[in-house]
Amino acid sequence: MDAAQALAAPPSLDPLLKLAGPDMQAVDALIREHMDSPVPVIPALADHLIAGSAKRLRPLLTIAAARLCGARDDNCLKLAAAVEFIHTATLLHDDVVDSSQLRRGRVAAHLIWGAPASVLVGDFLFARAFELMVGAGSMPALEILARASRVISEGEVLQLTRSHDLDLSQEVYIEIIKAKTAELFAAAAEAGAVSAGAAPDRCRAMRRFGQDLGLAFQLIDDALDYSGDAKTLGKNPGDDFREGKVTLPLLLAMARTAASERDFWVRTIDRREQVEGDLEHAFDLIRETRALDDTLALAARYADSAKAAIAGFGGATWLPALNDLADFAVLRRA
Amino acid sequence: MDAAQALAAPPSLDPLLKLAGPDMQAVDALIREHMDSPVPVIPALADHLIAGSAKRLRPLLTIAAARLCGARDDNCLKLAAAVEFIHTATLLHDDVVDSSQLRRGRVAAHLIWGAPASVLVGDFLFARAFELMVGAGSMPALEILARASRVISEGEVLQLTRSHDLDLSQEVYIEIIKAKTAELFAAAAEAGAVSAGAAPDRCRAMRRFGQDLGLAFQLIDDALDYSGDAKTLGKNPGDDFREGKVTLPLLLAMARTAASERDFWVRTIDRREQVEGDLEHAFDLIRETRALDDTLALAARYADSAKAAIAGFGGATWLPALNDLADFAVLRRA
Repeated sequence: MDAAQALAAPPSLDPLLKLAGPDMQAVDALIREHMDSPVPVIPALADHLIAGSAKRLRPLLTIAAARLCGARDDNCLKLAAAVEFIHTATLLHDDVVDSSQLRRGRVAAHLIWGAPASVLVGDFLFARAFELMVGAGSMPALEILARASRVISEGEVLQLTRSHDLDLSQEVYIEIIKAKTAELFAAAAEAGAVSAGAAPDRCRAMRRFGQDLGLAFQLIDDALDYSGDAKTLGKNPGDDFREGKVTLPLLLAMARTAASERDFWVRTIDRREQVEGDLEHAFDLIRETRALDDTLALAARYADSAKAAIAGFGGATWLPALNDLADFAVLRRA
Repeated sequence: MDAAQALAAPPSLDPLLKLAGPDMQAVDALIREHMDSPVPVIPALADHLIAGSAKRLRPLLTIAAARLCGARDDNCLKLAAAVEFIHTATLLHDDVVDSSQLRRGRVAAHLIWGAPASVLVGDFLFARAFELMVGAGSMPALEILARASRVISEGEVLQLTRSHDLDLSQEVYIEIIKAKTAELFAAAAEAGAVSAGAAPDRCRAMRRFGQDLGLAFQLIDDALDYSGDAKTLGKNPGDDFREGKVTLPLLLAMARTAASERDFWVRTIDRREQVEGDLEHAFDLIRETRALDDTLALAARYADSAKAAIAGFGGATWLPALNDLADFAVLRRA
């Protein structure tokens, strides 16, 4: 993708959403059915998050991977719903861990029902995910998603212990987002392919597509935190800076600004002592150092790599739609 | 079990521990191996809890059930380690939810590493449990333990939303402890039997044994909170009262004390406004109303019911050892 494309509007996901429409309706029904519980707080809290402005990209990826690989049965539907439950469980726990205020345009669940309920309903959704996977009956898919769940938690702990480090390297940053975000995209795609009975090299290619897509997706997420607007995003831009969380835009800006700014970074990020005007100053430094442009460029490279991974699959329906998804991950505004 | 027995010393678990010794050593090795991670906080935090004074009753139950049902292979070892990981994950999350200070005689993990790390390492252990189950290769065992994980979280949410209710019924109390505690004992035993290829009626009987054992175990836990001592318990007695958590001893005492005490319960439990001397007064009321005796008696009935469930199994080694375990659950002092 070149610079002109980077300024373009995001490609429409409509062809993909139309292709996957009936499957995604069935996935939605499975999600509704499995978030139910005789304990009233559980469906209320789960619904708050799940019915939010979710794009359902991860289950969409499972469906698209399975259908691209020729799946004829509906085992991928339960896996797709499981993937969304794993994602939702990690969001609930993340928001408690980060004390986030907003999620998907709504007040974070822990601010309504309390952190204890958020932790426990996260556990419920995580367990439900495994019940759905058992229902899908594929031990290899279970292995992929159990491993992914473990890798995600490792990524979250790594982020918790390292992401406030002024000297965080780009290498460790990529390691963190590969685990906390890209792993579930990778597993979602791979599980879809595996459930379709695809050959091992195709399963690996789909995994690679998912991983690179996930990396692009998270890089854009981190860029939007310095360039998006609250209404479109459904959360407050500048949150990462306020929390002292080092992501690529900040990491590049810190490395590229003069030594005279070192005190500014130490105070705002390391000691998290922020005053009015600090966020604006950080925005300026990120712009001046072209940190945001380089973050977007890296995301575009991962999207291209994702598309290259599945270029050999052929087919005139699902393949172009998945390519659109890779472009969308980079060009989206929210 | 009669009153004289209730005053007796707990039966020794030595025969069971000796029988299961080699298996449990292998389970310990699996636990050590699978709590490892390249992210340093994870094994440190997990080790703090897992290396504590854990009795490992739940994995012991999986091993004993499998061997009693004639298991010759070692699939039960991975399931047993998975059961301990599920248990440890729920303990980590529980201590965050309850803001507990002590666990297994040590400072609670969240007070050392923070609540965020405890939540995330709980997620790690939960995911590891499913990786171990996949390794055991039994889809029916996976189904049993995935379902149990979900039921446990439902029980925890039910406890969170109902256990401060002055008018909690004995029925709802039993529903809570059946879900939050007895379900994992039931699943641990059933998964062991299933992995041994036992007939469905034997699997059901082992499940029943586990469930009744778990109910007895939790009732004694709740009684010890009003009768044990901190050193033996590894946690502070009176915690339930201080947290305003209604368990059977308190529930019976509240129902049996005169209307004149109602203000005391409303203030200390409902409003959680406690002053010096309140805990002692509650102890007195619990003693006077024989609430503790009746809690112990109910536990003894569940232990008897557990033993009855597997009476037909026969065998001169594992069966008596499992009967000892049921008696131990009731007669233990910690």
